[in-house]
Parts: sequence; C-alpha cells; structure tokens
Amino acid sequence: MKRQDLDTPALIVDAVTMNRNIERMQRAAVDFGVRLRPHTKTHKSPEIAKLQVAAGAAGITVAKLGEAQVMADAGLDDILIANQIVGPLKLRRLAELAGRVRLAVLVDSREGVLQLEQALGEAGNVAVDVLIEVDTGKGRCGLGDLEGIADLADRIERSAVLRLRGVETHEGHVPAGAGSADQMRERAETAGRRVEEIAVALRARGHDVPEVSVGSTPAAPWTARISGITEMRPGTYVFNDVNQIAIAQATPADCALSVLASVISRPAPDRAVLDAGSKSLFCEPARRGFALIEYDGFGYIREAPAARIVGLNEEHAIVRLPAGSEFPGIGERVEVIPNHVCPAVNLHDELALVDGDEVVEIWPIAARGKVR
Amino acid sequence: MKRQDLDTPALIVDAVTMNRNIERMQRAAVDFGVRLRPHTKTHKSPEIAKLQVAAGAAGITVAKLGEAQVMADAGLDDILIANQIVGPLKLRRLAELAGRVRLAVLVDSREGVLQLEQALGEAGNVAVDVLIEVDTGKGRCGLGDLEGIADLADRIERSAVLRLRGVETHEGHVPAGAGSADQMRERAETAGRRVEEIAVALRARGHDVPEVSVGSTPAAPWTARISGITEMRPGTYVFNDVNQIAIAQATPADCALSVLASVISRPAPDRAVLDAGSKSLFCEPARRGFALIEYDGFGYIREAPAARIVGLNEEHAIVRLPAGSEFPGIGERVEVIPNHVCPAVNLHDELALVDGDEVVEIWPIAARGKVR
Repeated sequence: MKRQDLDTPALIVDAVTMNRNIERMQRAAVDFGVRLRPHTKTHKSPEIAKLQVAAGAAGITVAKLGEAQVMADAGLDDILIANQIVGPLKLRRLAELAGRVRLAVLVDSREGVLQLEQALGEAGNVAVDVLIEVDTGKGRCGLGDLEGIADLADRIERSAVLRLRGVETHEGHVPAGAGSADQMRERAETAGRRVEEIAVALRARGHDVPEVSVGSTPAAPWTARISGITEMRPGTYVFNDVNQIAIAQATPADCALSVLASVISRPAPDRAVLDAGSKSLFCEPARRGFALIEYDGFGYIREAPAARIVGLNEEHAIVRLPAGSEFPGIGERVEVIPNHVCPAVNLHDELALVDGDEVVEIWPIAARGKVR
Repeated sequence: MKRQDLDTPALIVDAVTMNRNIERMQRAAVDFGVRLRPHTKTHKSPEIAKLQVAAGAAGITVAKLGEAQVMADAGLDDILIANQIVGPLKLRRLAELAGRVRLAVLVDSREGVLQLEQALGEAGNVAVDVLIEVDTGKGRCGLGDLEGIADLADRIERSAVLRLRGVETHEGHVPAGAGSADQMRERAETAGRRVEEIAVALRARGHDVPEVSVGSTPAAPWTARISGITEMRPGTYVFNDVNQIAIAQATPADCALSVLASVISRPAPDRAVLDAGSKSLFCEPARRGFALIEYDGFGYIREAPAARIVGLNEEHAIVRLPAGSEFPGIGERVEVIPNHVCPAVNLHDELALVDGDEVVEIWPIAARGKVR
C-alpha cells in the first residue's frame, strides 16, 4: 500500500523519525543514569510501546486504568498508572490487573489509600505498589508539603497490601509561558530538586523510597539529570509536535506524526479549507514559546510553512494562504503537524506507519478513548 | 442498571429532556413552515436520529461520508452530507451510497463538480442531488457572489448525473461574539435573506431551486422564519450545552447531556480534580455570550454552580471551589455540561440514556470518529 492510497484525514507516522526519537531519549536516559518509563498516552499503541521497551525502556506509563488493561492484554507487563484511581468499580478492575502484571499507581490522600486498601483486601489481599504524587508547581493533583506526604507514607507503611515504591511528580508546568530555555531549566531543576528533597526527608524518617520519578518531555533534559532521580516518564518525544517546536526542542523534521488532509475548498484566493478539523487535530492553541520560528495557528502545514491554520471547526481547517498561492488546490493533500500530539492521536482509530511513500503498517490505536 | 452502576467518566443523556428538545424544535419547524433535517453530528447515534425522524424530521444531515454510511446502514434513508466531498477514494464510496439512499451533497467549485461527475459516471451514471454552498458570512467553504454561484448552477444543469436540489448555507457565524439576542437576530436574518435572494436570482435565470436550506441551532429561531426558506438543519438543540446557555437559548435544565465524573483528588481546600479532562469534555473555551449568568470555565457543574473548571488536561479537570466547600469530596460524582456538546460526544464510545436513577439504554455512538 502506498501513501496515496490512504484516505484523509489519516494519521501517518514516519518510521525513521519515530525510531530515531525513541533511540535518542533512551540514550539520554542512559546518559543521565535513570530508567526510562515512557508515557504511552502519546501513542496509545501497544506496538509502539513494545518498540520503546525493546529499545531499553523499563516498563511503561499510562494515564488511565483502561489504558493499562489494553497494554497488559498486549503483553506489556510493567505498568505505572500515573493517576489517582478511586471508586469501587475501578478499584475492582485494578485489583484484578495487579494480579497479572507488575503494577503501580499514584496516591495523594488518605481517602484514596483507604479505598485502594479496601478493594485490594476484598480481592484477596492482592498487593500493589504506590507512589505518592508530589505537587512541584503544577497545581493539579498531589501533595506539596512534607508533613502531609510523610503522614501518607506512614499510613501506607501500615498497610498490609500497599507497598511504597517511592515519590513522583509531573512537572507539566515547566514550559507554560516560559520565555527562554534558561527559564525552563530553572523551573525544571526546582521541581526535580523538590521531589528529590522529599525522598531524602522520607528516608530520614525511616521510609524506604526506591523510586524518585519525574515526568514530561519538555522538562526531561533537566529534571532527569538531577542526582537522586531514578526514573523519567516523558511521552511526547516519541512523535514531537508544534508545542515542542515552540520551545526549540524539535524541528519539523523531528516530528514523526502528521495528519494527512485534503483540500476540499478554495473559496477565496487566500483561503483553503482542509477536511481535517478539531475532530482530527484537536483544538488546543499552540504553546507560546521562544523558538525563532513561531507558529500561531492550529497546526503546522509541512508543505506550506507560510500558510496559517487560522480556525478549526469540527470537520474543517480554515487556512490562510500567502497572496497568490496556487498550492494547495482542491483535492491536493498536505501533512499537518498537530499542536499537541497526544489528544490528536486519541481522535483516531488507527495510524499508518510510513517509510517514504510506502505504508509499512496500519496499527490500531488500541488504547484510544479508554477514559475509564 | 442504575446511574450509580455507571463508571466515570460517562456520557449520560436525560431521556425526558432530550425528547422535549426534539419535540420543541419539530414544533418550531412546523410553525415556521420549513422541513427539519437535524444535523446528527451532535449525537452521532442512529437511535437518536430515528427518534428525530419519528418526531417528524424530513431526513437527516451529517458532516462526513463515513457518518452517512453508518446512518444508512442503520436504516436512515434520506441523508444530506453538509460538506464538500473530494478525492476518488471518497467519491467511489459516495457513488455506492447514492445507489442505496436519497442522498445529497454540497458543492462550491467547478473542480469539485467535475470530480463528482467523473466518479458517478464511473459508477454507472448514478445520479445524486447537489446543493450549492453559499457563504453568508462564516468565511469557511461556499461561494459568496451571485455570478460564481450562477456559473456553478449552469455547470450542474449541464451534467447528466447531478441534480440541482437548491442552495444551502451554514450561518455558524451568527453567535460569534454577539452582544445581544437582537444582534444575533440581525445577523441571522441577513444570512437567511442572502441565501433566499440567491435562490430567487437563480430562478430568475431559469434554474429550478426547490430547496433553500439553513443550518445552526443558535440562528434557527430567526433564519427559519424567513419567507422562502424551506429547510433547517440545527444539531445542538437535541442536547444543548454551555454555549447555548451563554446566548440565553437554554438553561441547565434544557441540557440533556452531561459527563458524569468523579472527584479523584482534593489537594487543597479550594481545589478538586475530576477524572474527566479534555479527552472527555473537549477543550473549547465557553462561547462569550450575553446571558445573565456567565460560565467562563470548561464546563458547568450541575451540583456546584459556583465552582469553576479553571483548567483541563487530557484526563483531569481542575475545579476551583468557593472557600470552605466540602462538596464534592474524593469519590463523589458530579455531572458536567460540556461547553460544546458535539465534539465532546465524539470522544466517547457510548452514551447512557437515563430516566431519573434508571439507566434505560446504553447506545453506541456509532458514528464517532468517522472523519473520513
């Protein structure tokens, strides 16, 4: 099958670029002396997760229990659910999964620990690893103060079914509004040092804290270098996207994934309309960054860098073209790099792995839509 | 099955509210003397499409060929694809579908007409209805000037396989930034009159223009009343959403659909985190409107109107609570009305139809993700 045999919109992934991205991050992890546990929410594909493990990854990260089940069913056997899991319906499923694979989950409250313990007890005292989620500045889940964290660690140590594997943070706030790489480095180092300080303090109180885990592709070049960090969980690096370009961590040539789209209308000389809208590209505006080249549209068109996607509806991208552009005409195709690749992937049922003009694989995005 | 047996995040649709919304719009169509051809992109469910037809709808509207195929397979037999369809792969499928149901599609270019004709010819001269898409101010697809439209109408009349059914517009620009209902009415009437003028002018040139079709829920109260309009294609009305509340066309009680979500973390007294993020609610900011009550978050929490969803990540909604709120606690559930219901529905595989605490149906969102 050739690229031109794919109908649009279609997710296409350049195999050479993706494999290079996988190898680069693996090499960085080795250089930094940390384990790489890639976040598979970016691709939601067991096939790609296996490529990451084959390259040296020490297990995988997922965002949801449903994603963990898909990955476990496909043979991935060391899974961190980087999320808080609550409610009896999910915890029953979690207990079942904990019996099948090496599983860990986050906690950030006594109530959460209690629910988890109860479900594991009802399932016959299945044991599961937990990491305490530390808020290092993102302001989402996680505890920020040492006292609260130590209190939770004490509570976990008293549990018959929970094992404290360590502490973790998602330093997703690092790139937000950053004006320079130096500013990002400073934020990343602050976050990484904070979670490491917490680990040291817990050890001083007698806790065993084998894992100190950090997340996020944008922060990875800095957090993972910090002495004491044992694991990193970047996700986006496998494909890259416009947000990565905006902070000068990638160029379009480093972006492995595009949405292949067709022009369906050329109603004005400076306007083209694509058949890929917010149902294909997602609708996040591009991250404000500091790269020399700024893309302020809803995706970057590889074949027409001067064009701007100025608006998205569900099934339409409205493209403003430089005056006098004949390309792209009705029926012609372009490749669009999404602003944020992870939620864009989640909109599609499958991806086409390409090598030049050749479609080498069609892989289902098996963990798509697993929000539960 | 009871509501509490549903795991979260889950789409729930209140049957009583949905049926009332369906009946109201049907009654409005009768009052205005137009046919109602509801846009099914809002629900993507053949079951709900059938309820709309049973209530009196004259066929349905879809956004994509793939949606049309799902609806046709489910027995819906009068379908307008309100979009430009180009490229040989899709046009082959369109020709096949045209042989099975009463089908119409939009055109806005000679190139598009040519491609369509060629594909229908190759399929053994299957005939298909076309409507010329008129741009009445949205600036997406469609032609704005009478000369271009008349030229295209002439071209269609010379075709052996295309039948000119009429003209259509999607006046989706009507609510954008509107400061009052009067301003919306003015814009809606201008758009509706424009497409009607085009129809009159085409008839004066000898064309038969049986259908003059307008779209969009926000504009429907005004465009569909205009003399000469024959058909309207609103979609959102079946569920309503925060965007409809913002322009005072709905209250929360008119919103049939919610995302049922659980609190997974209460890391600070004024913060709760839900397990429904942009992968469950979509990420569009709320429309700026003029209703007395303004919701500026990423969804409206029915049980906590004073709370604000201040941020969404893929799997997390970050909720700012009024000081001292104990509700909602970890594990408790809330119902969130999405800002824009159509793309939120597209993120889910199924919806639960509820009547009070009772889950009466689980329906697959069969046309989810049919972007091709």
